[in-house]
Amino acid sequence: MHDCIRVLVLGTGQMGSGIARLLLEKPGIELAGVYARRKERSGLDLGPLIGLDIAVGIVISNDLDATLEKIRPDIAIQATCSRVADAAGELSTLIRHGVHVISIAEEMAYPAASSPAISEQLHRLACAHRVALLGTGINPGFILDLLVIMLSGICSDIQSITARRVNDLSSYGPTVMASQGIGLSPEAFQKGLENKTVVGHIGFVQSIHMITAALGWEIERIEEKQEAIVTHVRRQTPFVSIEPGQVAGCNHTAVAYRKGKAVITLIHPQQICPSLEGIETGDTIEIEGTPNVSLSGAPEIPGGQATCALAVNMIPRVLTASPGLHTMADLPVPAAMLGDARLFVNRYKREQMYD
Amino acid sequence: MHDCIRVLVLGTGQMGSGIARLLLEKPGIELAGVYARRKERSGLDLGPLIGLDIAVGIVISNDLDATLEKIRPDIAIQATCSRVADAAGELSTLIRHGVHVISIAEEMAYPAASSPAISEQLHRLACAHRVALLGTGINPGFILDLLVIMLSGICSDIQSITARRVNDLSSYGPTVMASQGIGLSPEAFQKGLENKTVVGHIGFVQSIHMITAALGWEIERIEEKQEAIVTHVRRQTPFVSIEPGQVAGCNHTAVAYRKGKAVITLIHPQQICPSLEGIETGDTIEIEGTPNVSLSGAPEIPGGQATCALAVNMIPRVLTASPGLHTMADLPVPAAMLGDARLFVNRYKREQMYD
Repeated sequence: MHDCIRVLVLGTGQMGSGIARLLLEKPGIELAGVYARRKERSGLDLGPLIGLDIAVGIVISNDLDATLEKIRPDIAIQATCSRVADAAGELSTLIRHGVHVISIAEEMAYPAASSPAISEQLHRLACAHRVALLGTGINPGFILDLLVIMLSGICSDIQSITARRVNDLSSYGPTVMASQGIGLSPEAFQKGLENKTVVGHIGFVQSIHMITAALGWEIERIEEKQEAIVTHVRRQTPFVSIEPGQVAGCNHTAVAYRKGKAVITLIHPQQICPSLEGIETGDTIEIEGTPNVSLSGAPEIPGGQATCALAVNMIPRVLTASPGLHTMADLPVPAAMLGDARLFVNRYKREQMYD
Repeated sequence: MHDCIRVLVLGTGQMGSGIARLLLEKPGIELAGVYARRKERSGLDLGPLIGLDIAVGIVISNDLDATLEKIRPDIAIQATCSRVADAAGELSTLIRHGVHVISIAEEMAYPAASSPAISEQLHRLACAHRVALLGTGINPGFILDLLVIMLSGICSDIQSITARRVNDLSSYGPTVMASQGIGLSPEAFQKGLENKTVVGHIGFVQSIHMITAALGWEIERIEEKQEAIVTHVRRQTPFVSIEPGQVAGCNHTAVAYRKGKAVITLIHPQQICPSLEGIETGDTIEIEGTPNVSLSGAPEIPGGQATCALAVNMIPRVLTASPGLHTMADLPVPAAMLGDARLFVNRYKREQMYD
């Protein structure tokens, strides 16, 4: 069998660490290096940083170009940011080094939605260097878009789509808490929305564009709404403690209109400790069409774990994809990679060959 | 824009008729001809046969070769049979005429499971004639396999998979009733199983092979079990009426073993009027893994409608797929085709191109 697939991870936050942990366990894969934006992490061994008792012999680097020249990875997983504009520099560097890339930056799930010009540049650059680039993640990238598209495949007509993800943010850290306005007063939450320190969910526009492109729908506009979820009880996590009257999260919704009618409604209230007010978490997709389709699950699919797994599971698909920029909707369905990663690469290559 | 996509439908039963009705309504598609195995349908106009008040000017043919030479379709949808061995003759003829094919024959969802030699021949023939061949349908082809695979994509490890489809056969005709042993005594049901007049569900082996191939699991054996669902109340449909003590359907299950452990369990009780005994129909997928995944919907996705829609929705994907035999797991996720079919073909071609 060939040498292991050499993977570089960008990012040492919760997601980058989770991805690195998975890669260390996967047969056929070698975690070849880890890059961090944070200078203070440079030179540290990865092991303790990702919760292992021992050093793993992988030293975190703060110099992407030098790392790439030294370790020459086959593919990189980017977990450093959320926005296309912020991701594009690292992505371009990776592509120029001939490295395939999977990004979990939310906007990269459908980058043309927020940044059509950068998307086009990344696509052309990836084509020129003959590597594939994919954005993925649980949301956007799976629950509120790919799963919706897949279920639409059994419909001959569709009037409207409603998808809802009610999740629990209790396990997340300070960055996520701040982005949802958790712990603020309702007034400070409003001010946070205005000055964009409170953002709610990043990904609605990407999910809607992925769905409408797949279905062939032209839409006129998308309306987003962010509302404070004000708690009536005390709620507490390892990172934050809030009192009645304070903000426990952000109820973020987006509605897409076609011919004046709401055709896609995405609902995603995110908060800490929802169960304390009797709120059940879960994922639901409802298609009003021919036939109607309704699927749901509770509690919600855990976002962090699922995003890490999905990024790793897509490695062999991206390694065998055509050069250029891809979305989850134009690659074959993801699957759990439960054997040696190299066997998956070989199988996907075989599937594409013909006599 | 190019000419319409010319489609030939094989089969004038419930599925063939449903597919023909959908094709007549789809922009960018021309239903170019219909072939029936039943000689007595030859020469009839399609319209009245598929429930329309008027003739549609499409005359049903009983001669496949002559039809192909006359109408020269781009793609055919086969809805004439369930088994690979039975499907292969028509498929070979279609392929030799350079026609892409979508088959809803159950075993064609993963034809290598029942008929590896014929599968290989069909693959080579399709490659030689540079056409794509796909098996699809709601089950096998979607609920108990493709959806399972897709949900596995968010798991980093999996211990076991259980998928259940409880459906209502009340709307089906005499052929389906007979295949499930509906109306028989429990003794006659047993005898029917032995002499293979009662078959239960066709597709478990195909679904299991599709899942295990996607996940990289080697399994040792598959155990199937068919049990009579004996009614305690009178149940009646337009085609059959049964009394307490008679068989209302077949509870068919399949279990796949890996390293001595049951890893995939598929459960599919099919019967008429389940609600009369308080049985709720629905679809459920449960993955015990990291993370656990559970999704369900009730009532069940209607099999006939969904299969017809899925076959039609896959047309542009098959027209733009690489030559050879495909399964739903190696093509991009299906999507509802809600615009002109030619636009989808153009978009899929663009996705595959690079500069």
